[in-house]
Amino acid sequence: MTNAVTELKNIGKAAKEASRKLAYLSTDVKNKALLNIAEDLRSKTKEILTANKLDLKQAMANGINKTMQDRLLLNETRLEGMAKDVLNVATLPDPVGEVFDMRTMPNGLLIGRKRVPLGAIGAMYESRPNVTVDIATLCLKSGNAVILRGGKEAINSNLALSKLVQKAIARASVPEGAVQFIENTDRSLVDKMLKMNEYIDLMIPRGSDAFVRLVVRNATMAVVAGGIGVCHTYIDLTADIDKAVAIVYNAKVQKPSVCNALDTILVHKGIAARFLSLVAKELAKAGVELHCDARSLSILKSKRGLKLKAAVKEDWGKEFLALIAAVKVVGSLDEALEHIARYGSGHSEAIVTEDYASGMRFLNEVDAACVYLNASTRFTDGSQFGLGAEVGISTQKMHARGPLGLKELTSYKWIIFGNGQVRP
Amino acid sequence: MTNAVTELKNIGKAAKEASRKLAYLSTDVKNKALLNIAEDLRSKTKEILTANKLDLKQAMANGINKTMQDRLLLNETRLEGMAKDVLNVATLPDPVGEVFDMRTMPNGLLIGRKRVPLGAIGAMYESRPNVTVDIATLCLKSGNAVILRGGKEAINSNLALSKLVQKAIARASVPEGAVQFIENTDRSLVDKMLKMNEYIDLMIPRGSDAFVRLVVRNATMAVVAGGIGVCHTYIDLTADIDKAVAIVYNAKVQKPSVCNALDTILVHKGIAARFLSLVAKELAKAGVELHCDARSLSILKSKRGLKLKAAVKEDWGKEFLALIAAVKVVGSLDEALEHIARYGSGHSEAIVTEDYASGMRFLNEVDAACVYLNASTRFTDGSQFGLGAEVGISTQKMHARGPLGLKELTSYKWIIFGNGQVRP
Repeated sequence: MTNAVTELKNIGKAAKEASRKLAYLSTDVKNKALLNIAEDLRSKTKEILTANKLDLKQAMANGINKTMQDRLLLNETRLEGMAKDVLNVATLPDPVGEVFDMRTMPNGLLIGRKRVPLGAIGAMYESRPNVTVDIATLCLKSGNAVILRGGKEAINSNLALSKLVQKAIARASVPEGAVQFIENTDRSLVDKMLKMNEYIDLMIPRGSDAFVRLVVRNATMAVVAGGIGVCHTYIDLTADIDKAVAIVYNAKVQKPSVCNALDTILVHKGIAARFLSLVAKELAKAGVELHCDARSLSILKSKRGLKLKAAVKEDWGKEFLALIAAVKVVGSLDEALEHIARYGSGHSEAIVTEDYASGMRFLNEVDAACVYLNASTRFTDGSQFGLGAEVGISTQKMHARGPLGLKELTSYKWIIFGNGQVRP
Repeated sequence: MTNAVTELKNIGKAAKEASRKLAYLSTDVKNKALLNIAEDLRSKTKEILTANKLDLKQAMANGINKTMQDRLLLNETRLEGMAKDVLNVATLPDPVGEVFDMRTMPNGLLIGRKRVPLGAIGAMYESRPNVTVDIATLCLKSGNAVILRGGKEAINSNLALSKLVQKAIARASVPEGAVQFIENTDRSLVDKMLKMNEYIDLMIPRGSDAFVRLVVRNATMAVVAGGIGVCHTYIDLTADIDKAVAIVYNAKVQKPSVCNALDTILVHKGIAARFLSLVAKELAKAGVELHCDARSLSILKSKRGLKLKAAVKEDWGKEFLALIAAVKVVGSLDEALEHIARYGSGHSEAIVTEDYASGMRFLNEVDAACVYLNASTRFTDGSQFGLGAEVGISTQKMHARGPLGLKELTSYKWIIFGNGQVRP
């Protein structure tokens, strides 16, 4: 254990040291490194898939469910997708070095802000091995050193991928220590890593609500927390019913296991009967179970083929991550806003309405990372927002909110060009 | 004590509630409130000065030193200065509502970011009563609710000022709870306040290094830490000697008690003899004591009228906040960069040079909030940087770095205008 801790510290030191050089590594070198990674993902599929098979075998021996198996699985198509994602990051503009707010002050000082990397980033995540490559490439392009710690179940895949990345970027002369992976999956090392604020500037935890909370509570460095999405879609009195049904269906069904999927349907009483009958029928085709408040239950209970339950208190503010949605009839937009303020997690919230004033009030008054007017909350995603990719989604207000792309992995410094100025 | 805790919670709740309304309060109302504050600072000088006299009397009874007395002191000139500062904040553009990065995506979604307040801010500070008005006005203009907690020694002044602010903004119909002041100066309430992350989004601690560290360690909400400035000025081989002497003199002498004052002089060995003789003579006139490394001591020890000491290990990386500077001769720019990387606090660092490449390397490679080329570090200040004012200076990289003005007290939310889009 003492050895493991010493090793962890050395990883931290190496990251910090590498970060000083990465801060002013040229865009050309960084892009060359990214091209090398993509190349190797295409040419070394065999090694990666062999490692992945080991993880899958172990997972099945442990009786892991199908969803989890699918999250673990790599194949040639997925590796090609990863290679394309890396190439995409290479085409994105380098955020580092951007100068903004530059101006000449009355005393002749030229003052502005220059974008710089954050330094060394720690990332803790679960199962999906592609996250290893995603986060490594985004950190590299934004000039940050990164220490990766993946889940135990994907250890062989992650090790193979991180070694591939390390070799690929070394060929482009990226400083050693830029991308490191913690091989030891001992849980107690998580806590040790959270105390390494001397070496790690920012921690990005990805995983369950409980895990993210644990990191927030114990980390000594800055944390970008998020990913917990209790997402509401409110169907206003004047909603276009077809759009409303399509949006709710998409937000709930297209990928129910993710944070931007719909959890609660709020619907105005004046449109509830028509809307709920239609949407419930569609959702039933996908096997969605509805947890209904008294009013929505009385509308739906006579319909055939629906999976209905009476909602309990715990259904409000719950992130289902499954084919389940809570349903509530509200008396007004104000009641919907109140409900969202009380139960939302500040992730993604939507209104469907044809009324201008209602739409604008919702956009203004809902306090969340992403607020939608007539669109599915499933769009909350770095690539869908034009950021190219993301290392996570922040539900906090400090530093960055919503999807974290390259720019969100940077800070700035003030640069001041003088000619001997002193303060009077 | 239980009553005090309950009261504190009520203050937190009221702030959170007010912040929801403040978020979309019009710029006109906010500016009217600021004009009212300035008006009252001019018309109610008598009440404020009476309260301030009580604090001064108590302070003198407690044997507080002259510097501290001066920090506490209010008079008509100072109140007029405060009124002018408030009027200045009123003239600054409102950061809230600014929309940026707005674009139409290929699927027709119109996506952008809209600037919003952070919510409720806590501020803990010491002695100077003008901070009460400074922070209150900046938070108000940026749409944030604020809970102020000033030092015990300024309690009467702070109470009078915060009541003045509350009455002035109430006349402009700013929601109640926007500006609150904690009257109870019991130290144990600090810890209670740090646990109120349910109500307070950001804590701004101002004060000693130890106090800021205590807040960082114990706060459950985000903290913008800073204010600790271990500031170096490096005199390069090619420096213009006159500028170098003027810059170092200004950075050390103009206001030695603040965070952006010079602490350590680094000087290239090739210019050390000439430069140090001149600067030491000037600094001696102001009574500055120099803590010299062996090489600088051997240059200066024969000169008359200087206050010299041999530097000890603790002098490097020390924030003196007094008329003391450490002095070190270095062999090269690289050695200066290494020294700053090791001992700097990431606040303000300067180089004096006429060499283009040295200047650019320093600007690029020094990792600090503010990096100066040929100017005094004393300029690190919101008003000097064109931000109008500041609530503090951040030495961290997350969220905001350097002086925190109005924009730095905001976050953003993504707003998405759709027309029925769903994710394929």
